[in-house]
Formats: sequence, C-alpha cells, structure tokens
Amino acid sequence: MRSTPRSRVVVSRSGRRTRWAPVAEALRRALASGSRAAGELLPSTRELASTFGVHRQTIMVALDALCAEGLLRAEPRRGYRVAAPEPGLPPPRPAKSRAAGYTFRIVREPGPIPAAIGAVKYPLHSATPDPSLLPLRELRASYAHVLARHGSSALDAATGAGNPLLVRELLDYLRRARAVLFERMLVTVGSQEGIALAARALLGPGDVVAVEDPGYLPAWQAFRAVGAEVVPVPVDARGLRVDALERLLRRRRVRLVYVTPNHQYPTTVTLSAPRRRALLELTLGHGVPILEDDYDHEYHYRGEPQAPLAASATAPHVLYVASLSKLVAPGVRIGMLCGSGELLDVLERHRQSTVRAGDGVTQAALADWIADGGFERHVRRARRAYAERRDAALAALSRAATKLPLELTPPDGGLAIWVRWPEHDTVELARRALARGVAVLPGPLASIEANSPGMRLAFGRVGPARFAEAVSILASEAKRM
Amino acid sequence: MRSTPRSRVVVSRSGRRTRWAPVAEALRRALASGSRAAGELLPSTRELASTFGVHRQTIMVALDALCAEGLLRAEPRRGYRVAAPEPGLPPPRPAKSRAAGYTFRIVREPGPIPAAIGAVKYPLHSATPDPSLLPLRELRASYAHVLARHGSSALDAATGAGNPLLVRELLDYLRRARAVLFERMLVTVGSQEGIALAARALLGPGDVVAVEDPGYLPAWQAFRAVGAEVVPVPVDARGLRVDALERLLRRRRVRLVYVTPNHQYPTTVTLSAPRRRALLELTLGHGVPILEDDYDHEYHYRGEPQAPLAASATAPHVLYVASLSKLVAPGVRIGMLCGSGELLDVLERHRQSTVRAGDGVTQAALADWIADGGFERHVRRARRAYAERRDAALAALSRAATKLPLELTPPDGGLAIWVRWPEHDTVELARRALARGVAVLPGPLASIEANSPGMRLAFGRVGPARFAEAVSILASEAKRM
Repeated sequence: MRSTPRSRVVVSRSGRRTRWAPVAEALRRALASGSRAAGELLPSTRELASTFGVHRQTIMVALDALCAEGLLRAEPRRGYRVAAPEPGLPPPRPAKSRAAGYTFRIVREPGPIPAAIGAVKYPLHSATPDPSLLPLRELRASYAHVLARHGSSALDAATGAGNPLLVRELLDYLRRARAVLFERMLVTVGSQEGIALAARALLGPGDVVAVEDPGYLPAWQAFRAVGAEVVPVPVDARGLRVDALERLLRRRRVRLVYVTPNHQYPTTVTLSAPRRRALLELTLGHGVPILEDDYDHEYHYRGEPQAPLAASATAPHVLYVASLSKLVAPGVRIGMLCGSGELLDVLERHRQSTVRAGDGVTQAALADWIADGGFERHVRRARRAYAERRDAALAALSRAATKLPLELTPPDGGLAIWVRWPEHDTVELARRALARGVAVLPGPLASIEANSPGMRLAFGRVGPARFAEAVSILASEAKRM
Repeated sequence: MRSTPRSRVVVSRSGRRTRWAPVAEALRRALASGSRAAGELLPSTRELASTFGVHRQTIMVALDALCAEGLLRAEPRRGYRVAAPEPGLPPPRPAKSRAAGYTFRIVREPGPIPAAIGAVKYPLHSATPDPSLLPLRELRASYAHVLARHGSSALDAATGAGNPLLVRELLDYLRRARAVLFERMLVTVGSQEGIALAARALLGPGDVVAVEDPGYLPAWQAFRAVGAEVVPVPVDARGLRVDALERLLRRRRVRLVYVTPNHQYPTTVTLSAPRRRALLELTLGHGVPILEDDYDHEYHYRGEPQAPLAASATAPHVLYVASLSKLVAPGVRIGMLCGSGELLDVLERHRQSTVRAGDGVTQAALADWIADGGFERHVRRARRAYAERRDAALAALSRAATKLPLELTPPDGGLAIWVRWPEHDTVELARRALARGVAVLPGPLASIEANSPGMRLAFGRVGPARFAEAVSILASEAKRM
C-alpha cells in the first residue's frame, strides 16, 4: 500500500483500505469551491501533511491523483499548482443551488396505491397462496440443479420471450391443464408486466378500456398509466353484465375489454357460459380486443373450471395473461402473456425498452420443476387443501350469517369468499376489524362506481380455526356499528 | 371416474383422465354454431352414445355439464332441450369474422431491436461477464439457504422497493465500494427497469433528452417509448463533450441528460474530472436532472475508478442506476435505482403499474450471498481476471495495428476495447466477420449522428487465445476490403 500507518483509514471502492482517498476528496472539494485561483501554488506537501495529520507520502499520492484528474499540475521543484480549466469547457459559474435541494419535475404522476397492510394476525385481505404448502425440498433441488454447471442457461439473460425451456413447459401445461393451445408466449415479470405491455401496445391517451366493476385496481392503473380512460361495467352473480357492455360499445369507441372470467376479481363469480359466448361474439363483432386475466384458474372446486375464453374457436381477438403467483408463490414473479404470434412480436419488442428480461435463475429452476412433474403435483395438493379451507370458511360464515345481515353465494372457485353486508359501511367495518388484527378488502376499494356493500375474505393463508376467529371478530365489530 | 372404459380418453385440465369432456366440447361447438334452435329437443342419449362411440353414461355426464353451463335444460322423461338465451344478453349475431383472423390495432410501435446474434465461436459483441468465473457452489448455497424454511422472505413478493435485506446490502455495498451514500434505493429488474421508470416519471411526449453519441441504444428506446426526443451530444477521448451539451442547453429546453461517465458505453472512455465538475454545474445551473448509468464501475484497471457523479456534493439532481448484470451474470436481473427519497417514492409508485416487483427468490439469495462476503470476493477475483484479459486483448490488437489502419486508446476500464478503423466501413467489416464466427458491435449501430468508424470488441467472455484468433480473422477480413 502507498501510505503509512500514521494516516486515517477508510475502506475504498475496491474494498481495499486506502489512506490517501479522503485527503484527495477534501482537496477536491476545496478546489471545487473556487477558493484557489487557477495557477495558484498549493502549500508544500510538508505543510499539507501536517494539516491533514497524515504522512507526506500520503499527501503526494493524493496530489498525484488530482494531477491525473486534471485538477492540479505538478511543477518540478516548485510544487503543485491549481490547473487552468480544460479548453473547451464552459467557464465555471457559481453553483447557486449547490447547498439547496433540487426538485425533480414529475411529468407523469403515478396512481395512488392502497395503504400497505403490514403483518397482521388474520391476513384475509390478500388472496395469496399459503407458502407452507410448497415442497421447498423440490424447489431447492431445482434451483441447485440449474446452478450446477457453468454452461447452464440459468445465468444467461432470459431475453426476448423468456427462457425457452420454461416457455415450452408452460405452453404445454396450459394445453394439458386449461385445454388451451397458444401459438406464442412471453414469460413476463408477473401478470402485471403482461397487462402493462398490452396497455402500452394497444392503448393511447384518451382510449377507453371497459373493465369489470368491482375489479382489479392494478390493471386499471396500468391502463391509466398510458393515458387510457377506465370505464366500469357492472358485475352480477353471473359475472360481467354483457348487456351493459353492449350498451357501452354502442355509445363509445372502446379499445379494450379487460376481464377475469374465472373467479372474477374480487367477487370470485364465474362468468356464465352463455355470457362467455355473448362476450366473444359481441367484442369480435365490434372489433374490440379482449385482455383475459386467468389468474387462479386451477382453484376451482365445483365441477371442472370453464375453459378460458382464449380456448374458444371465436377468440382470435383474445390476449391471455396468467401467472404463477397463486400457483407457486407471489415471490416467484413468473407471468404468462399468450396470443397470436404477430401481436406477441410487438409486445416482445416493447419489453426491450421496459425490463428486457425477467430473472434467468428462477425461470430455469421453474422449468426444471415443471418438467419433473413437481409443479403439477403441488397444484393438485394445493387445490385439495384450499377446497377444504373454503368449505370451513363457508361454514364459519354461514354460522355468522344466522345472526347478522350478511349475505354470500358460495363461490365455485378462488382463494376468497365475497360477502355482502347490505346494512353496513364495509370500509368502516374493515377499519375497525384491522384495529383488531383482521385485514380484509372492502368492496369500495376495488370499485369505480359499484359502491358494492361487498367484502373480500381470503382464506388461502389462514387455517380454518383462524378464519373462524377472524369471522367472530368481524361479526362482533359489525354488531357494534 | 364418471365414465366407462369404452370411451375415448383425454387428459383434462386437472391432469385427470376424463372421457366426457371431448363429448361436451363437441356438443358445445355444435350448439354454438346455431344449428339447433332454442327449445329444440336433442337426440336421445342412446342415439348420442352411438354417434360418439361412447357409453351412455358418458353422454349423460356431458349433457349435465352443458345444463350446468346453461346451454341445455333437462326435461323429465323427454330428454334435453336447447336452452333459450339467458335474459339480459344481446341477441346472438352471426360472428362474421369467426373463421377469419383478427388484426390488433397497435397504438405504440416499439422501436426496432438489433438482429439477435445467436451462438458464435467468438462472441465479442456483448460485454457480458464470463459465467465460468462465478462461484456456483456459493450461489447454490445462498439459494438453498433462503429456500430452507417456509417463513423465509424469498417466497414473498419483494414489493415496493424490493427485498429490504437486499436493499440494505446493496446500499452498504455502494457506500463501501463506490464511496457513494444514497438515501433510498429501488431494486429493479435490471438497470433497464430503472431507466424506464425514470423516463416514465420525468419525460413527456416531445421532451428532449440529451444522450452520449455513440451511446446506449436500450436507454434511447426507453426514452423514445414515452414519446421523448433523443438528441445526441458527441463523445471524445475525455468523454461527453460538455461544451457541446452547453450549446444544446442554450438552444433547447432539455429535460434530462443521460450519461455513462465511467467506461462510457460503447467507447469505454472515462469522463475526465474537470468535465465531471463542469457537467454537474452546468446541469444544476439549468435545473436539468442527470440520469447516471454506472453499469460496470468496478472493472477499472488503471488507478482507482472515479467516484460516481452522484457522490459529488453538487449532485442533488442526479438519479443513479446500476446493476449486477456485469458483476454477477446477465441472468441475475437485479438493478439499482438510487436517489432522493421524494423522487424514489414517485418511481416506486410507478412500479405498481408496470412490474410491481422483481423476483423474490433471487433477491433473497443475492442478499444472503452479499452479506456472506461472497459477492465482494467474486468481484475482486473477476476484476483481476478481466484486467489480464484486457492486457492480452490490447497486446493482440497492438500486434494487428502494426499492419493495419487500426487505432485504439487503451481504456482505463470496462469489459471491451473500442477500436477505430478510419479506412473501413465497420458495418460491412462486422458483417464479414460474423460470417466467420466473429461477432462485434460496429459503431454505427450504437450511433445517432456520430457515424463513428469505431468498433467495440468485448473481451469478457473469451480467453486471450480466442480473442487473438478473433482479431486475426478481423484483420484478414479488413485486408480484403
């Protein structure tokens, strides 16, 4: 090292300990302040060494660094002079705002985000899966497998559409499990990236997007972020009111219809088969594309789930998004964006300017786990577990409904139950419940105009006993209102 | 199962084998075609069983499913009738375009992307690090560690700013290794997400962004994707021509300056210290923010790297991006976006509508590896390895330069060398070299107006012998031109 034990020690950029760097920085700042004119001679190295309390050699290293940076010039036998400004540079000007702060001009304000809910005893607000159901040993083995050798694709950027093995496995899975065959798929960073890409390619400022109301706020935010107008279409016990959509299509030029036909978010209602057909015909007749979000298809407990809209013979205009957030874990950010090759080419090119690619290691590991059959075994086990939790949750809610003005329709699927409190302000009820550790999603927070007296109670992450406790707390708070 | 061994077998959505599903689907399509009127009685189950070649019980299960979907209704002792359309639905209309394709209206065309270069023998086009330098055993251990128990944060969505442990480790790393202390950081999906978020928040349609020319195309695409105009500022042997930027600032209202001060992309030139100071003062004086992309800071071989612009006392207007793509692997999509808390809050909210969060597993694993010291050991080893490869690459190029009109300035850092062929068309030379397995980046592909006769030769992924072979091939092709 170039210095002596007397000087101060800091850890430098490279992790090595250097003693001259803080001296150089102090001199740099002194020069930047303009306190010395160009050409002025600096104090001697001996003097500087005494000023800084370091060895003379340390000072010399620091001064050499500043010479290399063009701030000083060394003059044989005289010392160091402040260098003249480099030719071609604008004249230095006093930095008026140096000490002051700086305010960035924000051109696009992001939408509001709901207040984060921290750790609570009863997390019924978010229909995320229970991580304790995951076979961690299998997942660890898949990650270890793909990181076992240097030639593995795990460490390469999963550019373009994503890891090709994972694309193949997921396309094949959708064919087997959801009876839908796609020409192309992009593996996205969660379903949100897929929705945002669709918004970017298909929607301009002022364009109208028809959405379910109540519905999925993060999708609305992606549409609004590109300047689109989100127009609500009501939802009833059979899903999206296609008749209301038809009236909207006659009245306004709609550029996209966003739907969650299976276990509608947040009501968990399944769009009826006649409405599915009507929706496809109506939108195709008007030339309006559909963005279908099939976010928790497999969690269907009564009969077989409906095939996706995209599986229909009349769905050339359907762009399909799905994700592994509900099937594996929310931390595994793997989404799927599927549709015709021509459109997917455009969407893939849009990715180049947004995220370029998702995580290569997780994509390779998931491809391995799916190919091994572990993923589908897990989905089957999880589905059974959630079916049991759903039954227990329904039983607890039915008991409560005998004493309270609380209505519910047992859903066919999903990780949550939608209950209605016709006589209660659900936002206020949610606020009171949160104070007692019960987090829920009140309908108005997922509404544009619906102002539904609904409330979403997710049962995925809490066992039957804790769900029943949460319902008791909700009931006692409701009675007091 | 609800069917008999006689019928056909398909694998259903849930992975179970069902026999009635294809029958139901065939009937569904027949009904959708409108070939039977509402109220019409279907053939008997016996007849249908014979038509489909399946057991009668299979037919009954299929018909029950269609009843549940509202397509049929069962009539005791008569059979199954085509159901009347659901009330509230628009009248069915012939789907004219059913068989025809559908063309999505693309509102925003993505920018062009350079033709992908597949696997080649001499990959000198992309300055990605050599994966064979990575200590895979350590990385595997970190992934295994964070997937060892169910309560781990790895499986939770790394919402908001990203995994908090990783944010802390990376902020601390930047302080130690780059001598820069940030108030806040978002862990992004590679540096590209950071650049795209900055563009989204800070640039509107028609806004001017000043960029280095030649420069980094993916950043330009992010700016153009939000409607901004990318205006070139030339680069010389000392980096960005700050005098040219000053003239631009006087002429036009510039909204953002994007720079790569350390090892400028693609020329690897280091911005001189006087220009750094001038750039900071000039932009602060004009109130124009800087987006500083410090993408391979640590790969500096001659002296200490310059501290980032953001480390300066006069940098309240600097937003800083960095990434682990060059330090770990391009497949590990971890970027950093750092700056003042107020701006970072806005950027974090913008993430909600774009990707929401990056991969939770990789973020947790990297936090573990960094905390263990493995990451910094790796960076030190990698830096030594690349310093050797750089010296070998320079030697090979110097030998070639004795016989060819080829100029180069040994760079202080980076994973590539920028050479100039003043007498050659570098695009044509690159095309010819590619035909012989040598991929390079010719300057014009990274230029707006510069039309530089430069060519970027990356040495990170190829050993000295292969780099020398690649140079021989380039030299022989250049001689023939």
